[in-house]
Amino acid sequence: MRMVDIIEKKRDGRKLDEKEIRFFIEGYTKGTIPDYQASAFCMAILFQGMDREETAILTDAMMHSGEMIDLSSISGIKCDKHSTGGVGDKASLAVGPIVAACGAKLAKLSGRGLGHTGGTLDKLESIPGLTVSLSEEQFIKQVNDIGLAIIGQTAEIDPADKKMYALRDVTGTIPSIPLIASSIMSKKLAAGSDVILLDVKVGDGAFMKTKEDAEKLARAMVDIGTHLGRKVSAVLTDMDEPLGLAVGNALEVKEAIDTLNGKGPRDFRELIRLASAKILLSAGLYKTKEEALIQVEKVIQNGAALEKLCQMVSAQKGDASYIRHPEKFLLAKHIIPIYAKEKGYVAKIDAMEIGLSAMRLGAGRETMEDIIDPSAGILLEKKVGDRVEKGDVLAYAHTNKDGVEEILDDILSCFHLSSISLPEKPIILGEID
Amino acid sequence: MRMVDIIEKKRDGRKLDEKEIRFFIEGYTKGTIPDYQASAFCMAILFQGMDREETAILTDAMMHSGEMIDLSSISGIKCDKHSTGGVGDKASLAVGPIVAACGAKLAKLSGRGLGHTGGTLDKLESIPGLTVSLSEEQFIKQVNDIGLAIIGQTAEIDPADKKMYALRDVTGTIPSIPLIASSIMSKKLAAGSDVILLDVKVGDGAFMKTKEDAEKLARAMVDIGTHLGRKVSAVLTDMDEPLGLAVGNALEVKEAIDTLNGKGPRDFRELIRLASAKILLSAGLYKTKEEALIQVEKVIQNGAALEKLCQMVSAQKGDASYIRHPEKFLLAKHIIPIYAKEKGYVAKIDAMEIGLSAMRLGAGRETMEDIIDPSAGILLEKKVGDRVEKGDVLAYAHTNKDGVEEILDDILSCFHLSSISLPEKPIILGEID
Repeated sequence: MRMVDIIEKKRDGRKLDEKEIRFFIEGYTKGTIPDYQASAFCMAILFQGMDREETAILTDAMMHSGEMIDLSSISGIKCDKHSTGGVGDKASLAVGPIVAACGAKLAKLSGRGLGHTGGTLDKLESIPGLTVSLSEEQFIKQVNDIGLAIIGQTAEIDPADKKMYALRDVTGTIPSIPLIASSIMSKKLAAGSDVILLDVKVGDGAFMKTKEDAEKLARAMVDIGTHLGRKVSAVLTDMDEPLGLAVGNALEVKEAIDTLNGKGPRDFRELIRLASAKILLSAGLYKTKEEALIQVEKVIQNGAALEKLCQMVSAQKGDASYIRHPEKFLLAKHIIPIYAKEKGYVAKIDAMEIGLSAMRLGAGRETMEDIIDPSAGILLEKKVGDRVEKGDVLAYAHTNKDGVEEILDDILSCFHLSSISLPEKPIILGEID
Repeated sequence: MRMVDIIEKKRDGRKLDEKEIRFFIEGYTKGTIPDYQASAFCMAILFQGMDREETAILTDAMMHSGEMIDLSSISGIKCDKHSTGGVGDKASLAVGPIVAACGAKLAKLSGRGLGHTGGTLDKLESIPGLTVSLSEEQFIKQVNDIGLAIIGQTAEIDPADKKMYALRDVTGTIPSIPLIASSIMSKKLAAGSDVILLDVKVGDGAFMKTKEDAEKLARAMVDIGTHLGRKVSAVLTDMDEPLGLAVGNALEVKEAIDTLNGKGPRDFRELIRLASAKILLSAGLYKTKEEALIQVEKVIQNGAALEKLCQMVSAQKGDASYIRHPEKFLLAKHIIPIYAKEKGYVAKIDAMEIGLSAMRLGAGRETMEDIIDPSAGILLEKKVGDRVEKGDVLAYAHTNKDGVEEILDDILSCFHLSSISLPEKPIILGEID
């Protein structure tokens, strides 16, 4: 078998068979197929696409390119949640404890933030003492004991994806639905869960800019799950403005705690309830979404979900007193209000730009080597639809840096005001099962 | 400027500007742009195309990537001829002497054969003593003195093309009209001639399988010439069967000599007359094609063209007595007739397969390291349209190898007979100016 023939077959729009796809992934992972053939192949896939079966085989081959996490020693249905990445997305910090409090087993391997998006691991690490570095054995034991663990990768999972993503990033071959879907799903499937809930973000601050594209991606990922015998469902959620009010690591943890205390911003409350209910439904713990939603509400109201977060933090050597007393989190040296220069209704808040501004305030990384300031970030005071008077505070910038005037101007310019009141934007744009 | 942005721009179907195209060619030639970006870029071009202006700029950038031959010290209009490659294509061996005998200056850098196609240099080297390795100075002096020289590359011409072609060959990015056109034209333009005649082969034994594709390629190449201030014209010629009767180096030289003696097969006679006339017309030596054709006929009939070939052979240290007495060429040890197994009319002779069989008899190279046997090859006795009786000789295999039975069977199976007589196929399929 020759790689050039496989490239030409895909270039000419023909369907690849299992042997050809596995030949590529195995050869590319081992290094016997060079980068220059892989990049031309990815470009051919970008133009010609892949059908469901090809995409599932590609995902399966990538998933098997490295170590696979074996969760079989955890009793019950193992669940996972994945977001395609947005600004202010602290959903896992709330959904994990909620579903665990409802009896599900949430075993989540998470990632770090880069650019305008934050990472769940970075957010968790703003809790003093907490570690995200567990062995696979410790990870499994913790999920068995308390039903919940969120940690970093334990082993060399999916090296094919790591290599392909780095190559795609510099060869213009990122925006291909089958390549994005297989990249996300191969990692998630290698992590071993039976049930996976995908939160596909749509809008300016997300990778998918239109609902149509997001739907295609969600459908492709759900199909991969179906093909490979896992229960995968997806929600499409708005990322035209940041999720919730908090952007930045400790700020987001506090918002998650707030929400587990039955408070928190509307959009975030709504998203975590639906995401949690869908996981519980997929896991077969409840018969209907309504039953699941009632149980979700119950564990929030009776404090069981917050208690589950405390258990997880303690199990991962963190100081759970911060969860019970979030006022303990250290604040940044500067908390700078950003005032409205005119009156109107908030029509849009540029999510991507808010994410980048938060990054520049210290909350994120421009390169993987950068160090994060857990207290830095942006706290929105207004969301889309809110009425604003001239002089109202639109947001607060939290930072330990001096001389951030330019960033403050950028944050101000993220707020687009309209003279007429606009209808509230729904956070949930669709569900795919 | 970042290469990834240029790839994405082309991927998205947008027109590249001059700076971007030159950035790519300069960076790729120097090695600052890696193969994996170049291959993804070529695949994007394959899908999105390039317009005339982009293709001309690409060609110009490639042409300037290495040394350029300066022919300005040759008086008069300098002419060149290029074939896209076929089986039995010895046209340059006849066209060169004809146009030189008519007063044109033919300064041709030529190549070697690989796979099913032969190379003009290999054919010339079957003349004892002849060298194709001249210095640029010797080359220019010879063209000035006798109006004709055909040699190998003197300098590092067009390194960008060398690198790109090798990459495209293994990444499925060969069949792109702008990439093929710029690859051919950048080399030809760097060789310095004012007038270029392109022979674009069409059919089973050629790179372009359909007349439509060949027309597109010819049009693209003529456009490049126009854009860059050269006089380029093209003929589209049939390659569904081999050109003429002889396939193999010395056999083809003998057929060229035969034709310069006013004999030779019909298709080959017709092709070299038209090609020669078009060069003379482009060079401005005659006003009309008819005048040029009359002059071409004259230099064939009065022996001036054959004399010009003798002059060239002598100038390049070859033994010109072989040209005057072609019976001196050494024959292969085995000359094996291939008999028709049934009667009928020849409907098709697989050109590609004849070329490969000739190669296996010793006439060609499977890899660039293989050594050519000048006497080996195939001499057809029948062409498309000919009537065949059972037991007639279809062709003779010339070889110094033993145990070639399998090759003989392959040659036999190249002849497709029909029970009904078919009209003679034209050799000239079109002209583009």
